[in-house]
Amino acid sequence: MHKMYNTSVCSSMFSPNALQSIMSSCTLKNQRLRIGHRTKVPRNVNMEKLQHGYLFPEIQRHQLMHLEKYPHANVIDLGIGDTTEPLSTIVTSSMVDFVHGLSTEKGYKGYGPEQGEKALRKEIADTIYKDLGIKPSEVFVSDGAQCDISRLQLLMGPNLKIFVPDPSFPAYIDSSVIIGQAGEFVYETGKYKNIEYMTCGPQTNFFPDLHTASRADIIFFCSPNNPTGHAATRKQLEQLVDFAKENGSIIIFDSAYSAYITDDSPKSIFEISGAREVAIEVSSFSKFAGFTGVRLGWTVVPEELSYSNGFPVVHDFNRIMCTCFNGASNIAQAGGLACLSPEGLKAVQSHVDNYMDNARILVDALTSVGLKVYGGKNAPYAWVHFPGSNSWDVFAEILEKTHMITVPGSGFGPGGEEYIRISAFGQRDSIIEASERFQCLV
Amino acid sequence: MHKMYNTSVCSSMFSPNALQSIMSSCTLKNQRLRIGHRTKVPRNVNMEKLQHGYLFPEIQRHQLMHLEKYPHANVIDLGIGDTTEPLSTIVTSSMVDFVHGLSTEKGYKGYGPEQGEKALRKEIADTIYKDLGIKPSEVFVSDGAQCDISRLQLLMGPNLKIFVPDPSFPAYIDSSVIIGQAGEFVYETGKYKNIEYMTCGPQTNFFPDLHTASRADIIFFCSPNNPTGHAATRKQLEQLVDFAKENGSIIIFDSAYSAYITDDSPKSIFEISGAREVAIEVSSFSKFAGFTGVRLGWTVVPEELSYSNGFPVVHDFNRIMCTCFNGASNIAQAGGLACLSPEGLKAVQSHVDNYMDNARILVDALTSVGLKVYGGKNAPYAWVHFPGSNSWDVFAEILEKTHMITVPGSGFGPGGEEYIRISAFGQRDSIIEASERFQCLV
Repeated sequence: MHKMYNTSVCSSMFSPNALQSIMSSCTLKNQRLRIGHRTKVPRNVNMEKLQHGYLFPEIQRHQLMHLEKYPHANVIDLGIGDTTEPLSTIVTSSMVDFVHGLSTEKGYKGYGPEQGEKALRKEIADTIYKDLGIKPSEVFVSDGAQCDISRLQLLMGPNLKIFVPDPSFPAYIDSSVIIGQAGEFVYETGKYKNIEYMTCGPQTNFFPDLHTASRADIIFFCSPNNPTGHAATRKQLEQLVDFAKENGSIIIFDSAYSAYITDDSPKSIFEISGAREVAIEVSSFSKFAGFTGVRLGWTVVPEELSYSNGFPVVHDFNRIMCTCFNGASNIAQAGGLACLSPEGLKAVQSHVDNYMDNARILVDALTSVGLKVYGGKNAPYAWVHFPGSNSWDVFAEILEKTHMITVPGSGFGPGGEEYIRISAFGQRDSIIEASERFQCLV
Repeated sequence: MHKMYNTSVCSSMFSPNALQSIMSSCTLKNQRLRIGHRTKVPRNVNMEKLQHGYLFPEIQRHQLMHLEKYPHANVIDLGIGDTTEPLSTIVTSSMVDFVHGLSTEKGYKGYGPEQGEKALRKEIADTIYKDLGIKPSEVFVSDGAQCDISRLQLLMGPNLKIFVPDPSFPAYIDSSVIIGQAGEFVYETGKYKNIEYMTCGPQTNFFPDLHTASRADIIFFCSPNNPTGHAATRKQLEQLVDFAKENGSIIIFDSAYSAYITDDSPKSIFEISGAREVAIEVSSFSKFAGFTGVRLGWTVVPEELSYSNGFPVVHDFNRIMCTCFNGASNIAQAGGLACLSPEGLKAVQSHVDNYMDNARILVDALTSVGLKVYGGKNAPYAWVHFPGSNSWDVFAEILEKTHMITVPGSGFGPGGEEYIRISAFGQRDSIIEASERFQCLV
């Protein structure tokens, strides 16, 4: 199939058609609105620098357009990576009890601590970070990792240099643009001027070549990586911590997919000696426990982590959580606590295993049609190579030919060009159907 | 009682003792942490400018200190303004059904739209903004007003001048400092240099004197006001909209307490003609429906509102919601939808009425001991004047003498000095007990 695509030097996230359609709709809208009153408030220059809509809503837009064209198509969504398995009754009955309680004098709860319920902070420290020495007071419960990334950007402010693996989860770069760290977008490279993009491809075992990397204040790092599915090895993470230490950088480590690791790759940056002095970890119940709609996550900020003036980062993050956030929903927190009970963990693990079985089915199918597939072993994402192709073109052709939604790799940065991310979240019958549809790509 | 307090020129939010204790704990912490590795990441200058801990956690800290001193004290909390009445079973049974559904194949839901569920957006538009022409697409569902204020600051960026009523909800100023709009803090005035503070006291019927106001890009305005309890009249809001229009400003109107209005004051800025071109409205289920812990709010951004270049603000706000937020908990949204049903609204109203009965009891008690009391008629807050006193001293003395938590007015800005805010949220027996304890202030 990949031979069907022309090599393209376009590094934009959008096909020219999509870009044109977005631009003309903006122009129309502006023209219409220019008739009325206009404020004298200048548009935020940082917002102006954003190059396109946020990736996943954009993909959803394409899906809707496809459904308009083919109203009866049975579209299979291997795109956004949304959990599909019903929650275990162990988890829901715990939330049901909590909600029932809210209608009683004894069980009603108002504001909880902005940092999260004590019991949940302790359980995250004791269960997720067992034997890693994380204190409950270092755990901040939130409404999800993506929201915490923005709050971490608010914490850090506009004057820092950030380092992102390329490709990686788009929220790192987009939130950096919004806070004002990114500088100008350079169309020729598809990169923002002040952001250090470190290519993570098969040539470097999906890890940045740190020998060629210049210093950054903040190093975003996600393991298992979204989108490549690569889980960094212990040795790689040791190199990363050493690099951060030598450069005086702070690692923001995103472990949202750690539950999917099947080999002995570290599940937390805090498994690496010295990480407490250089790293923050962001994580989530979304993919771990199917809480994508329930909304629950957490961030760990170790006490030892300090700014150049010695001031502890955890104090400022606490202030951000108290001022810009007001605690995660107490119902979601009750559910999160149930997930971390021994029975809850078993139920959660069975969902993770199920999605990883899906991943194996998809990887086998993709491999059988001659495609080079990465990932799918420690993460529910297959990262499929279409050498010489433009990934938005591949996305469009897969959609047109098979009615399946995927994610174009360039949506995760210029390093994702020529790749497509395929999500293994889905019900088994859909996954089997998808693996059959891939046969027509031969 | 007020004669017992010395006149103080201290405009700080803290008593000297409290400040000393906070500063020494920071110093100790820093000294301990200076021993280990320090990153080379500079502390965000905006975070450095924050003068103190966020108000409500600070008050909680005082409460804990008091309980250490008097472990058996029956402390009554008239402080943070947290709802206490159990939710109606109409609301909880709806959430219970939703949660049960999450454990079934048919009822399981993953990611919802970042902007909120369609049905809820429509119901907010149709019920809360009945006949005001608000479209569902202009309603963005969130996890609360405080969080939306921070997201609106992210949207607006650091280079704007803001205008705040003084006193007002501290999140306006604190979020402005964090994003970098505020400039230096001037100790002599207790104000940030670049923020326009507009005194709203009894002399001006708790409304800013707009004739003396200079232009700002963003006008924060809260009605009913927290802390003064004043609901702006229609005439006042018309003046505000005119002022914004003349100056090309954007009003961020906080209507979190609108359900408590008992007279004919407008409940939404969109009741005022022309507001769609100059205003954003932030609101919440917290005080309206007792969702302080469940977490649910919304923001309305009208299509007509545009930046100086004609670009619609709603497009950028949508981008912020998609990038920095990921939707409110779907369980909370199911609850919110139930609140807006005819039966739900009745149940919600009965709670509001109950808190307003509390307010009357407290206002009567405070008035009976000779205190001058404002508010309490259109908001569940009494705003009590202690002429010539330092409000943190009054707070401390009330706590010491009566074991009751209040909020020092200066926590809401220098214009709150000499005042104490008393919350009417509480169970009736506590409120009656509180009104008796106030007698000992004579």
